[in-house]
Amino acid sequence: MAELARRSDLSVATIKYYLREGLLQPGRRTSVNQAVYDAAHLERLRLVRALAKVARLPLHKIREVIQAVSVESSVLGAMAVTQDALVGDIETGALDKTADEALTRAIEERGWRCEPGSPAHRAAIRAVAELQAEGLGALVDRLDDYAQAADSIGRIDLEVVSVVDSLEAMIRGVVLGSVLRRPLLDTFVLLAQQHYANELHGNAP
Amino acid sequence: MAELARRSDLSVATIKYYLREGLLQPGRRTSVNQAVYDAAHLERLRLVRALAKVARLPLHKIREVIQAVSVESSVLGAMAVTQDALVGDIETGALDKTADEALTRAIEERGWRCEPGSPAHRAAIRAVAELQAEGLGALVDRLDDYAQAADSIGRIDLEVVSVVDSLEAMIRGVVLGSVLRRPLLDTFVLLAQQHYANELHGNAP
Repeated sequence: MAELARRSDLSVATIKYYLREGLLQPGRRTSVNQAVYDAAHLERLRLVRALAKVARLPLHKIREVIQAVSVESSVLGAMAVTQDALVGDIETGALDKTADEALTRAIEERGWRCEPGSPAHRAAIRAVAELQAEGLGALVDRLDDYAQAADSIGRIDLEVVSVVDSLEAMIRGVVLGSVLRRPLLDTFVLLAQQHYANELHGNAP
Repeated sequence: MAELARRSDLSVATIKYYLREGLLQPGRRTSVNQAVYDAAHLERLRLVRALAKVARLPLHKIREVIQAVSVESSVLGAMAVTQDALVGDIETGALDKTADEALTRAIEERGWRCEPGSPAHRAAIRAVAELQAEGLGALVDRLDDYAQAADSIGRIDLEVVSVVDSLEAMIRGVVLGSVLRRPLLDTFVLLAQQHYANELHGNAP
């Protein structure tokens, strides 16, 4: 247990908590107060850790993803479960029609085959509607450009996952990659903004 | 006040709370229990709403951004404050050296002029380190490709802001745009992932 804590970068208390909550499978008991943990336990802990500490998902969402990963037998399925957890709960009411149309045009322009009723799709409509409501029309006018950049990212994400040779590793890669790639892209965009803010509004170097 | 609630899509109770907390400037009193609010109040409320409901920033961070926006006199300054709030608190300890070097190479490759000590830069090093620690080397190998996509996004972000003609509107655009563009890109990437998951792992249409 101490070894597991060291290698997963989690406290013993946290690991015991994950055990109690069923997020980590029990170790093999060797005596009343001793159990053996192996590489599978460490791998699971790292996944739970990423979902909890990096994606900051609530416990019930972590449980959903973990359960899905154990039974899932396709990359598509694992991706759907991960996306739904990352998007979070989304209201089921009617969505803004103008935003829906603007999104549909952007999707058609790119030729994306995606799932119209998925939480990600509903969340995208809501994101466009928010921009329209706030009068950020100049930004909405560039939907196609943002979609083009998003296309590159989605393509790289899937290429990265697909170089792995076992399905199990691929599914783990989908979940872990989706969660950990997010802060990477977020922060890279901030650095790019700094660069272009300097270019357009800063003094000469 | 009722009118303000309707047009800002916030409850009267929430608006009164923002008034008490000093996030919204007081209206012009016309009698003991009547006050007049104008377009500036509505604009401020929408900004606070976006920071609270979309970016989910804690109250003290919202106050920081709001105060900075009122005194800030440059796009660069407004952007720095917004970025710092979005990145959140980041530990000040030593950062991973390998990750730092990998990030430096990616930044040099793109020719970005950015701020080495900024919270965004530190958060980027941490993001790379997390990927390395989780054995997602295949993803780290593509840092340059992700940086290239991030470059497009940062460029569009700044172009969008820069079409506005008043500095005040530009600063508001930096803050509001940064906060509301995030869910747009996040969800667009999810749609692109769905597309490429279908392409690479799905059945033929």
